[in-house]
Amino acid sequence: MNHRNIEDKRHLRSLKTRIKLLEAAREVFLQEGFQKATISQMINKASIGYGTAYVHFGGKEDLLIVLMEGVMEQFFEIAEISFLPKSKQEAEEIIRKQANDFLKMAEAERDMMQVFEQAIGVSSLVSDKWKAIREKFIQRISTDVAYAQQNGLARSEVNHEIVARGWFFTNEMYLWEIVRDEHHSSVEEIARTIASVYVTGLYL
Amino acid sequence: MNHRNIEDKRHLRSLKTRIKLLEAAREVFLQEGFQKATISQMINKASIGYGTAYVHFGGKEDLLIVLMEGVMEQFFEIAEISFLPKSKQEAEEIIRKQANDFLKMAEAERDMMQVFEQAIGVSSLVSDKWKAIREKFIQRISTDVAYAQQNGLARSEVNHEIVARGWFFTNEMYLWEIVRDEHHSSVEEIARTIASVYVTGLYL
Repeated sequence: MNHRNIEDKRHLRSLKTRIKLLEAAREVFLQEGFQKATISQMINKASIGYGTAYVHFGGKEDLLIVLMEGVMEQFFEIAEISFLPKSKQEAEEIIRKQANDFLKMAEAERDMMQVFEQAIGVSSLVSDKWKAIREKFIQRISTDVAYAQQNGLARSEVNHEIVARGWFFTNEMYLWEIVRDEHHSSVEEIARTIASVYVTGLYL
Repeated sequence: MNHRNIEDKRHLRSLKTRIKLLEAAREVFLQEGFQKATISQMINKASIGYGTAYVHFGGKEDLLIVLMEGVMEQFFEIAEISFLPKSKQEAEEIIRKQANDFLKMAEAERDMMQVFEQAIGVSSLVSDKWKAIREKFIQRISTDVAYAQQNGLARSEVNHEIVARGWFFTNEMYLWEIVRDEHHSSVEEIARTIASVYVTGLYL
């Protein structure tokens, strides 16, 4: 067995440990909530050594952040759908679908999102991570708005970044209402209404 | 001295104690932040007895909530300006001014608002209070949207409550950015931009 093979096997073993620990962390977070969950519970559930675990993660916050990145990756896929509308109507269709998919995803991932919300409230590490995720979304929306302005589809006199932030904020706050199961209207009606006011307000 | 006078004096003394304690609480919260502040520090600063203090407030959360009500009262005054526009243009002027005043107030009350934000993250009592305050704002905006729809000024096919929530969320999230001093644009430009997209999107 050559050096390269040993390296590969070590890497694979390390990857498997990491995945086992992340799966255990997910289960413990869902069961206990963020505040009560402990890294010991996760290590025990994953049946790995303490030393090995700490090679991968410094604490439960690190584990949560990796889980958060995994869930948010699915949300980003929605935002990253190609946005090349040729008319106001086409823009409204794309944007309504994005808002709808975004809020539906919140519904589907409700349990983990509830854990994230708790963690954002109490951990500045997690809260900073959430802010970074938010900025990534806003940058993406901002690019879409600028594209529409450059192509004469959207009002060019408004600052595209301010518009993008405002639009993301509306989506984000509805996302948290849905996560907490506090929304009074259907996800479809929320998405249709906010997209309609936004597109009518911005597009020509 | 008759019974009524004794009652009045007792009431006055009680009111003065309450105010002294609230003033002390405000100072301690500003100095220590919500989490580090203790009710003992507040009682000492107010130079009142422990027993007397606890007649008025069960804990620091209660004190914070009363202080929050006081600050938010000023915000409500902005929302409660009479809203009887006769045209889309008039609506935009009123709404832009409201958004601007709301965000300017956040700037003026930044220090206390930072304490409120901390407290909302860690105390479910304070977080529930914030939710109640938010609902009061949304109800008020909702009434304004319904008024505009009934008078043929706004698109009647959209649900006024969904629209009102979305608009409040944009304002609220910009408020927190301003409180954290994380906004990239001027308050005036933020207010003008979000009001312009909102009014163009909703009004006829």
